[in-house]
Amino acid sequence: MEKVNIKYLAEELNLSISTVSRALRDSYEISTETKKRVVELAKKLDYVPNYHASSLRSKKSNMIAVVIPEVADSFFAQAINGIESVAQENGYHVLIYLTHESLLQEQALLKDLQSGWVAGVLMSVSSETEQVAHIEELLAKGIPLVFFDRPCDKIETAKITTDDWESSYKATQHLIERGCKKIALLSVSDSLSISTERMAGYRQALVDYAQPFEPSNNVLCTNCEEQNMQLIINLLKDEDRPDAILATVEKLTTSVYLACKKLQLSIPNDVKVISFSNLQSALLLNPSLTTITQPAFEMGRTAASLIFKSLKNKHFNLKAGSVVIPSTLEIRDSTFTEVTPVISNPLNAPLAHV
Amino acid sequence: MEKVNIKYLAEELNLSISTVSRALRDSYEISTETKKRVVELAKKLDYVPNYHASSLRSKKSNMIAVVIPEVADSFFAQAINGIESVAQENGYHVLIYLTHESLLQEQALLKDLQSGWVAGVLMSVSSETEQVAHIEELLAKGIPLVFFDRPCDKIETAKITTDDWESSYKATQHLIERGCKKIALLSVSDSLSISTERMAGYRQALVDYAQPFEPSNNVLCTNCEEQNMQLIINLLKDEDRPDAILATVEKLTTSVYLACKKLQLSIPNDVKVISFSNLQSALLLNPSLTTITQPAFEMGRTAASLIFKSLKNKHFNLKAGSVVIPSTLEIRDSTFTEVTPVISNPLNAPLAHV
Repeated sequence: MEKVNIKYLAEELNLSISTVSRALRDSYEISTETKKRVVELAKKLDYVPNYHASSLRSKKSNMIAVVIPEVADSFFAQAINGIESVAQENGYHVLIYLTHESLLQEQALLKDLQSGWVAGVLMSVSSETEQVAHIEELLAKGIPLVFFDRPCDKIETAKITTDDWESSYKATQHLIERGCKKIALLSVSDSLSISTERMAGYRQALVDYAQPFEPSNNVLCTNCEEQNMQLIINLLKDEDRPDAILATVEKLTTSVYLACKKLQLSIPNDVKVISFSNLQSALLLNPSLTTITQPAFEMGRTAASLIFKSLKNKHFNLKAGSVVIPSTLEIRDSTFTEVTPVISNPLNAPLAHV
Repeated sequence: MEKVNIKYLAEELNLSISTVSRALRDSYEISTETKKRVVELAKKLDYVPNYHASSLRSKKSNMIAVVIPEVADSFFAQAINGIESVAQENGYHVLIYLTHESLLQEQALLKDLQSGWVAGVLMSVSSETEQVAHIEELLAKGIPLVFFDRPCDKIETAKITTDDWESSYKATQHLIERGCKKIALLSVSDSLSISTERMAGYRQALVDYAQPFEPSNNVLCTNCEEQNMQLIINLLKDEDRPDAILATVEKLTTSVYLACKKLQLSIPNDVKVISFSNLQSALLLNPSLTTITQPAFEMGRTAASLIFKSLKNKHFNLKAGSVVIPSTLEIRDSTFTEVTPVISNPLNAPLAHV
């Protein structure tokens, strides 16, 4: 059978191609009667509208792209659910692209999206993303972009983030209040804004409680689990090891627990542990894990809502849509202490972002 | 500035549109000198090739789609990594689509993919997928499709699966050998082939070891965690409760552990637990979880390799590419018993698929 395209439909119906095209797009310029004829024949002949070709012409698309570092992370899994809940309400599909924390991958994917075949992009940048030309190019093509979780400071658009500084401050404060004197911090980047914010919150808490900052207790982890495991073992194997670990990324938790197991260190007696994590199984770990739980679903929903606002109203100022949604410290057994030590706060420091 | 398209490049270079197009596609018909001129100008003017429009014309695309029920599952997260490793080697991008176990969503997504703007589709069907017309329509458009993990029996194409029947048999056998007499099975579907296979392996083990099959011990779970929690509590609250649970889907593990916690039942003393799961934290749960670990990364790699084989060789018979890659039973504390009971196997049953 000949391929059913708009031209074929037009010939069969003795109508012009543009009439058929407009009828299929439910245009007000076409009569109800004609629309009915077109739609019925399209249905009968199993015509598949070529949305992508048409989106390139009309600059409309029924898809939004989500560009994220990975999916093996419960934060991103929950954020995607939030994004999809809004996309469905708006009749859009969601495409997920993974960068695997690689700037090169991110650049290639964004180049691909420049063609305008998705209506908008939601993005959490890779841990390698310091140059931003690829993001600027996407914006220059007029495609709306909203950052969530990991924004890019240099780019002006809506940023849906959580209170990384405050969360990290509170977590460090909690460890100090539980008697910890040497708190290590594990990061995956020293340039990502969420990493620098979390680092800054931690350092401010140390300053406020007059604890020394030791650069050797700040470990920059990698994408490789085996390497991370070795880095953590190196950190914990000496006698003057840290008595607490604050992991700024969920996937580091498993490595911390396994390293402690290997070194026969007890959590929480030898080492107390807090992790930024949305893992549902945090409660079921041995011991249960104290977490900073991020509002992942809500962040995804908010970011997607902004994209649709900007698609519906060209005058909507995306920049004005930035929101910070707070995280929650959930205290569990990994920071348990039999006797709560009384900590004097020498500077009587208020909890405030400086 | 005027939009830089092929026509614009052709005018600037005083070449025909088709020469520019072929030069950009590195065609052997165009001289190296001309190619160099075209590519240099394209680069200078920041020309973005419109891959999608061109893929519609040339029937080529640099993307493959992965259609899966969800990403909040470590099996799918690892399988995606396997798929992407092969896609990258072949210079393709991977798009991920989620059905959230909904047939309607799956139908809408596949309708979208019919336009041929992806080169191939890798798919794990939703738990609701009983009708298959939408899959047949995709194949009718000549788009290669490979199933992984959850195939559709009615569709003839490559199926990359694991040994669901055998794994389930072995898990049930392990529980019986550890002294369990009332083993419950939790599923999420009674029509998916992986569910029926896992159910059949379990039932055959019961038959072989002369244990009664009780329909009330077979619980069909849902997509809703709260509902699942209630179903499991109902299953375990009576005195003649099951002494073991075999969970056929990873996400049910958390509900089982939480239900036991709520009912103050000890795992493994009161209830032994095995789950199909690729969760890295299985080892760190309290108690550590005995799992059937699927070869997720390998399954993803194999499925993607087949798609590329069929793209490179039109005569390659996808149907012949089906593979079963075995899973592994990893025994941990959730099935621990102080004294290993001696079990007589009355039928001296061999482990064989019937």
